[in-house]
Amino acid sequence: MEPIRIHDADDSRIAEFRSIRERDLTGREGRFIAEGTVVLRMLGAAHRAGGDFCAEKILLLENRVAGLTDILADFPEDVPVYVASGAVLDRIAGFHLHRGVLALGRRKPERAVTELIADLPQKALVVAAFGISNHDNIGSIFRNAAAFGADAVLLDQSCCDPLYRKALRVSVGAVLSLPYAKSGTASEILTVLTEKDFAIWGLSPRGGVEIRNVPASDRMALITGTEGEGLPQDVLSRIQTARIAQAPGLDSLNAATATGIALYEIAMAQRRL
Amino acid sequence: MEPIRIHDADDSRIAEFRSIRERDLTGREGRFIAEGTVVLRMLGAAHRAGGDFCAEKILLLENRVAGLTDILADFPEDVPVYVASGAVLDRIAGFHLHRGVLALGRRKPERAVTELIADLPQKALVVAAFGISNHDNIGSIFRNAAAFGADAVLLDQSCCDPLYRKALRVSVGAVLSLPYAKSGTASEILTVLTEKDFAIWGLSPRGGVEIRNVPASDRMALITGTEGEGLPQDVLSRIQTARIAQAPGLDSLNAATATGIALYEIAMAQRRL
Repeated sequence: MEPIRIHDADDSRIAEFRSIRERDLTGREGRFIAEGTVVLRMLGAAHRAGGDFCAEKILLLENRVAGLTDILADFPEDVPVYVASGAVLDRIAGFHLHRGVLALGRRKPERAVTELIADLPQKALVVAAFGISNHDNIGSIFRNAAAFGADAVLLDQSCCDPLYRKALRVSVGAVLSLPYAKSGTASEILTVLTEKDFAIWGLSPRGGVEIRNVPASDRMALITGTEGEGLPQDVLSRIQTARIAQAPGLDSLNAATATGIALYEIAMAQRRL
Repeated sequence: MEPIRIHDADDSRIAEFRSIRERDLTGREGRFIAEGTVVLRMLGAAHRAGGDFCAEKILLLENRVAGLTDILADFPEDVPVYVASGAVLDRIAGFHLHRGVLALGRRKPERAVTELIADLPQKALVVAAFGISNHDNIGSIFRNAAAFGADAVLLDQSCCDPLYRKALRVSVGAVLSLPYAKSGTASEILTVLTEKDFAIWGLSPRGGVEIRNVPASDRMALITGTEGEGLPQDVLSRIQTARIAQAPGLDSLNAATATGIALYEIAMAQRRL
């Protein structure tokens, strides 16, 4: 598979990479931009596994090609690899792309949250995120969920798209490896989790149990809300709450760190690590 | 204390706020820029406490003044408050400053790491960071150290300045409340900690003890290194190592999350929360 050189930023073969900073904020029929070596490797693994994701094309800075031989070998021959000089690449992307590694991926139509829950094993850990509009936070939820072996991530319809370029990067590609679904309201997701016998936990400064002491259940769900405000009262009233002990009088932990601590404790309680 | 209106970006009274994006990367005799409401509040508290930090002047977007009355009341009368329109403020700062809240602070000459360690109580928890050049990571180390009640942060001389505007913001102002020092090499800091009877722990994927099971000591130090590479071998050979159990085959946790989990566990072991 010989890389194909692109000399002109207006070349139609790389049109999907043009001005990605603006474009990746919009829906494109399941298409998304993967950026950087780590995410490219995860896209290759996902493509090979034949699951929800495949790669359509790759665009690289010319001097990156040699160092990526192993990763590129993971993609089938019919995924074209384009290369360009730094000047042409920056004109294509619309900004200085110092990483120099881009791919266009596509995901199959998503399942609904209810379908994903129905497919989970009897012993399960899921993370459900409600109202997360920040791409960094969505990415870090996936990164932590993957690190601690969660089975799935459930997003309500008000969360942002985890396939957005920055979310994908912050997740270190975990969005491509961890089953997820995004549909319905927070209330609907809580109803399904309850019906399916999940012990549902969320963090609150006034939580009833220290997170280290949360009792294990076969099926556990951790709910995460927006940084700053935390989970709304109508959610808190329907779940069990845990606290993370902290020094008095301080601003709370960063949302990603708090979720990481909670997932570590719950996964340890379930003996899944 | 009536705010003083600035009409001209070249006004010498607000010269220190000019082009802060470039300038705050350079040393300025202990001076630093505090940005945002949360950090301004912490600067007011630090000034009032009469410790290492004081405020020299404040510069606000005109429409922010009314909402900051309580915080501004914390500063003494001789700290001038300047206000400007959005257009003037952006010309001063050199970029669009949507937060609209800036202050110029000054810190007293720093103590050396050895002096700070000598001042610690018999029962102590410190975080030591070696070679952290990323401002986000330095900021998050302070945020986590404060959240879990650490007594001090020790930085080797190769770490970046925690008073850099972004590090300060990410720390949610904890850099202004938590004693810290920055001097010497990693090796020198380890020597002093050992002499002062600290049990010294660091994270490693091949750590000898699960972090949840680290035994309590009266004096404990957690060492954090660079994201990605982790702690170098010459440091690892001089400390005790703990691991955070994770799902196999994945990229490691984000450095801030890993440090947060470790600090939570160590602070719980010491019963300081």
